[in-house]
Amino acid sequence: MSKLEQTINSIKPVNPAFYEKAQKRLDNLTKPQGSLGRLEQFAARIVAVSENTKPVLNKKAIFTFAGDHGVADEGVSAFPKEVTPQMVLNFLRGGAGINVLARHAGVDVVVIDIGVDYEFGNTDGLVHKKIIRGTKNIRKGPAMTQEEAIKCIEVGIDLANEYAKKGYRIFGTGEMGIANTTPSSAIAAVFSKRTVEDVTGRGTGIDDGAFKNKVRVIEDAIKINKPNPKDPLDVLAKLGGAEIAGIAGLVLGAAANRIPVVIDGFISTVGALIAYELCPTVKDYMFAAHTSVERGHWIMLEKMDMKPILNLNMRLGEGTGAALGISLIEAGVKIYNEMATFGEAGVSDRNDGKEQEAVNLPPQTLSGGQKSEAGR
Amino acid sequence: MSKLEQTINSIKPVNPAFYEKAQKRLDNLTKPQGSLGRLEQFAARIVAVSENTKPVLNKKAIFTFAGDHGVADEGVSAFPKEVTPQMVLNFLRGGAGINVLARHAGVDVVVIDIGVDYEFGNTDGLVHKKIIRGTKNIRKGPAMTQEEAIKCIEVGIDLANEYAKKGYRIFGTGEMGIANTTPSSAIAAVFSKRTVEDVTGRGTGIDDGAFKNKVRVIEDAIKINKPNPKDPLDVLAKLGGAEIAGIAGLVLGAAANRIPVVIDGFISTVGALIAYELCPTVKDYMFAAHTSVERGHWIMLEKMDMKPILNLNMRLGEGTGAALGISLIEAGVKIYNEMATFGEAGVSDRNDGKEQEAVNLPPQTLSGGQKSEAGR
Repeated sequence: MSKLEQTINSIKPVNPAFYEKAQKRLDNLTKPQGSLGRLEQFAARIVAVSENTKPVLNKKAIFTFAGDHGVADEGVSAFPKEVTPQMVLNFLRGGAGINVLARHAGVDVVVIDIGVDYEFGNTDGLVHKKIIRGTKNIRKGPAMTQEEAIKCIEVGIDLANEYAKKGYRIFGTGEMGIANTTPSSAIAAVFSKRTVEDVTGRGTGIDDGAFKNKVRVIEDAIKINKPNPKDPLDVLAKLGGAEIAGIAGLVLGAAANRIPVVIDGFISTVGALIAYELCPTVKDYMFAAHTSVERGHWIMLEKMDMKPILNLNMRLGEGTGAALGISLIEAGVKIYNEMATFGEAGVSDRNDGKEQEAVNLPPQTLSGGQKSEAGR
Repeated sequence: MSKLEQTINSIKPVNPAFYEKAQKRLDNLTKPQGSLGRLEQFAARIVAVSENTKPVLNKKAIFTFAGDHGVADEGVSAFPKEVTPQMVLNFLRGGAGINVLARHAGVDVVVIDIGVDYEFGNTDGLVHKKIIRGTKNIRKGPAMTQEEAIKCIEVGIDLANEYAKKGYRIFGTGEMGIANTTPSSAIAAVFSKRTVEDVTGRGTGIDDGAFKNKVRVIEDAIKINKPNPKDPLDVLAKLGGAEIAGIAGLVLGAAANRIPVVIDGFISTVGALIAYELCPTVKDYMFAAHTSVERGHWIMLEKMDMKPILNLNMRLGEGTGAALGISLIEAGVKIYNEMATFGEAGVSDRNDGKEQEAVNLPPQTLSGGQKSEAGR
């Protein structure tokens, strides 16, 4: 059995009993039940995914996969192709958007060359996993072979296994690849059965003429390659993206290791969709970080019935949305872990018979260990 | 001239030239222009509000004002009135939702007794500014006198002045007061000219019968008190809330000190609306943290043309939404401060003629100071 098959076989649905355990504690904290809304749901999901009633998200990583795209030759992006390796080096020096937001959220960034059309040599800090030097131009034929696509997926699986072993508790996805909204829209169109125009956006910011061209290029790519929507590996190999395949693998590996994975924006969601088409159970392990401006994004989230955490009109990729999403999920987990219960705090519960250990004032009868933060 | 009048007179509109300065830097960072969406807008606003092109949000505080409400006697809340002081003590020990989320966001919590119907004595860490021991029952008459309302506002102004002097760079609002969604809906109805039912929600979680009763109580309170919507102090004194007045004062004081202030949920937004009715220019200084589940919240945000940052179905108050909002605003400011420019990073700009200092590969020609985070 291949590594990919093995991984898929080891993914099990999340045990709903853990949701109930988590909810029981959440309902006993000093707040009206459910009043922290989605933060409470995040906490319950983390408990259920990790099967741990005392989860702590102390080690967090975002995996930013970089790859190039032959279809960039068709003028589908506002930026030249050399920006892919330039941005990889920017990531390694900590000067990119993902570095700033990951630092803010206390998340490590792992930068992977999975398919950049540039020779980095011994560049320090880069994870060297180059499977291809960019995809081929999908307007003319398949992006890569199916063997290459599987190898790219396995890079993601291997990283998930490695970082699970290192004790990481939550993953985020990210990517960099000039022109990669083009294969992403192509894949989104195939799986969603929507028109190309429905799922195509402006990427890094192209004008009307370039947009029309982009739609035509994607339509041609689908016509020439004839991807089979029933066969996710066929779609992936033909329409491509090494970084998209890496993300699909990371999602599968995360689920196999019972690690929650936060999906960044449009391109990451395409990677997640490939994983989902291969094994729908991965959905139990995924969070959607945000809705990006890209039109196809929302359609895919709906297809997987995923509700994004944020909507801040972002469209950068790299994992930037995932960093912010992880911080909000961690906020929910801290609520679950750190808030006092009604009993601990000596706070009266509701008027309507659900009362429990209501301790009366004055304050000196109250106990509790945490130091005041007032005037800190 | 009174302190309130003086404060209002010293509030000046934000200088738009600073938005342009900020946008110029944002547009030169290594990302497609505008691709970090609202994060970029947050940064530009902070630059403009503070008139500082290198703003750092290192000192942050949320002010949680606590007050009681005579109208609690009408059975409008699911929780008994003694929960107000109990929760104040929970805040001081760090066990409440606001404590957890403020720690997560690196924000200090300042807890103020501005109108709790309980004698705290020398309780450590509490800011003792009690103006009233709860409001009077607004179904029977005014909540407080206009003099008391002004004193409560001035508590907020004084705190804003004090924390501005201490070097704090951003404020958030918060509150605690059993039954305080009732005066909040009453005030929202008066200013928005909507029906009471339009702006009334379930608060901490009352059932259908209690909800109908709550609407009736609010309708009665408006009928009996006849607040004049053209006179914000009249509305505030008659329908009341010491903590709502304190928040109004904090907003006015923040604007006078050119400090951005993040408005929490429904009740905080009512306080912000009072400030806005007294001096519409405060809007330049406010951020709306989130949309709460409370129905009146959205209506007031629309009235002030404010777009909330988050929508996580929260309805706890205390400042919990403000803590998360502050963290996202700080993320935007860090983007502005810490990202590399195209020139610094040696990344090529767009294809379409906006190119600037594009540095060619290989990597050794690139400069830049930040350490790689990969594998950190």
